[in-house]
Amino acid sequence: MRATVFHGPFDIRVEQVRDAALHEPTDAVVRITHAAICGSDLWPYRGLEPFPPGGRLGHEWMGMVEDVGSQVSTIKRGDRVIAPFAFSDGTCEFYTNCLHGGVWGKTNDGGQAEAIRAPFADSTLVVVPSGVEGDEAMLKAILPLTDVMGTGHYAALLAGVHAGGTVAIVGDGAVGLCGVLAARRLGAEHIILLGHQKSRLELGRRFGATDLVTSRGEQAEREVIELTAGGAESVMECVGTKESIDTAVAIARPGGSIGYVGVPHGIEQINLMRLFFGHIALRGGGAPVRAFLPELLADVLAGRLDPSAVLDLTVDLDGVPSGYAAMDQRKALKVMVRP
Amino acid sequence: MRATVFHGPFDIRVEQVRDAALHEPTDAVVRITHAAICGSDLWPYRGLEPFPPGGRLGHEWMGMVEDVGSQVSTIKRGDRVIAPFAFSDGTCEFYTNCLHGGVWGKTNDGGQAEAIRAPFADSTLVVVPSGVEGDEAMLKAILPLTDVMGTGHYAALLAGVHAGGTVAIVGDGAVGLCGVLAARRLGAEHIILLGHQKSRLELGRRFGATDLVTSRGEQAEREVIELTAGGAESVMECVGTKESIDTAVAIARPGGSIGYVGVPHGIEQINLMRLFFGHIALRGGGAPVRAFLPELLADVLAGRLDPSAVLDLTVDLDGVPSGYAAMDQRKALKVMVRP
Repeated sequence: MRATVFHGPFDIRVEQVRDAALHEPTDAVVRITHAAICGSDLWPYRGLEPFPPGGRLGHEWMGMVEDVGSQVSTIKRGDRVIAPFAFSDGTCEFYTNCLHGGVWGKTNDGGQAEAIRAPFADSTLVVVPSGVEGDEAMLKAILPLTDVMGTGHYAALLAGVHAGGTVAIVGDGAVGLCGVLAARRLGAEHIILLGHQKSRLELGRRFGATDLVTSRGEQAEREVIELTAGGAESVMECVGTKESIDTAVAIARPGGSIGYVGVPHGIEQINLMRLFFGHIALRGGGAPVRAFLPELLADVLAGRLDPSAVLDLTVDLDGVPSGYAAMDQRKALKVMVRP
Repeated sequence: MRATVFHGPFDIRVEQVRDAALHEPTDAVVRITHAAICGSDLWPYRGLEPFPPGGRLGHEWMGMVEDVGSQVSTIKRGDRVIAPFAFSDGTCEFYTNCLHGGVWGKTNDGGQAEAIRAPFADSTLVVVPSGVEGDEAMLKAILPLTDVMGTGHYAALLAGVHAGGTVAIVGDGAVGLCGVLAARRLGAEHIILLGHQKSRLELGRRFGATDLVTSRGEQAEREVIELTAGGAESVMECVGTKESIDTAVAIARPGGSIGYVGVPHGIEQINLMRLFFGHIALRGGGAPVRAFLPELLADVLAGRLDPSAVLDLTVDLDGVPSGYAAMDQRKALKVMVRP
């Protein structure tokens, strides 16, 4: 079969690899129908995060079950399944810290491929009702639940977003935009989106942002503090850079909460004095997407939630390297892969 | 009247100052009967925090109301009142961030004095029932509610302490020890106290600590992680140094919460990667003691809560400088002042 393999920064290739196959009785083998390239895939792509040459890529995927191990009981051949970005055995106290699990790609099979071996199939995969087959718009709306939509939802929960509340969202990438949807879904009344790219901000407006802040640094901070008369009670940090965390800390209202879901990169200092004197809660982490999949999937299936617009470019498997390049050059917001 | 005045590091003097008097119609003048020296008073005492020469000291006090302004309605002459360490006008969204309030001492009157002008008397002071007069043991049990007991309680709330839960408390000072009481009061089943001083740890054991960890650094971290099979779900950081915050971050369980109430000093870096990948919530701040006073006072009056043992040395007003020295040299845990 063919899969996406990392050879070095800016060197992603689609190559023949050994076919996905059952190794453990708890495995499934899934033929990938839809995958996506994640903003976090760009960290190794750009050489900003160590990644093993020869490692596989792709942690956002769904597809059709081709085979299951003898101990798999809830998933069967022919099922459409969606995977959260991390797999887990379902026995650990906190699933994204599963001692036996991991994230797709790197040393495991990756999802930007023709097929994948999925460990712990019962506790990891979620069956999508068969009624969606052939409904490409619906399938495209479901795909972001693998990561960015669940991550935006987690940011909203961590930031304490609630009905009638005010939230500021730092970052107009796919997670930030899904964060807008999540905040609206939770009933936030004022949703302020901070970003720099016109087309993304316009999408944010369509998704439910009530205010857009396009300036940077202290100017952006002043604007949010003015818009909110003192800071936003909920702040969702959806980037993971020092600049974005600093902005999040600066625009949080005293007594407020920051949910940070961008994997921190190069952040050694944080303004702890402002957090302390402002009684600002700081909560983050990789989203426990598996836990959110059932409720978010139900909303997508019911037509109440549609994050598909974050996927603005579609490629086939051969097009994966060009998809990375398009995202790196900000020509695409997020790329869908149809192997 | 006489009051405690800061002249410079290690130079605290009790001097004649202008008598406390009403300035605003919302003021009260209170004759101090009991005050205390706080661990945080030692930061300026030791020259580790800027403090204006001539500034007053003492933010933990209670006493008898001598006079009230024309707009004061809930407090009257002859009432015994207890003050939280901060005063506030009661109209701000979040009282310890009151735009018009402040902390006693420094540029206001301080509580280590014969009397004090108390601004915003209605919204700041809490009346203590007259039945306690003459009951010195009860008055001594009430005094820590001005700060350290409320601060320990806040740390427990921020750390998510709950009935049947496991909590690790970093620091065996007065706040950490009151934190033990607070954790027990909230029903924690396992209370691990980290500290280095035998007599304080013994008091912690009396207060309800189930385990004591006396080692430092990585050895202490290993011990807590072993005791808790992976880290404490609730961690209360009650010191405010880099070492204590680092310990708190290291011993928190994935998915757990850290409540930090020691004012941070010299903490520029924090292990954000561990917080992120461990999904560990970080919440801190100066305790909103005023909000807790009614419930904690009710418990003390009912005999369900008694933090008086943290006050292990009593001095009169002339003895205040020697009280600072005793705390600085760790000859006293916490000093009560009887002007």
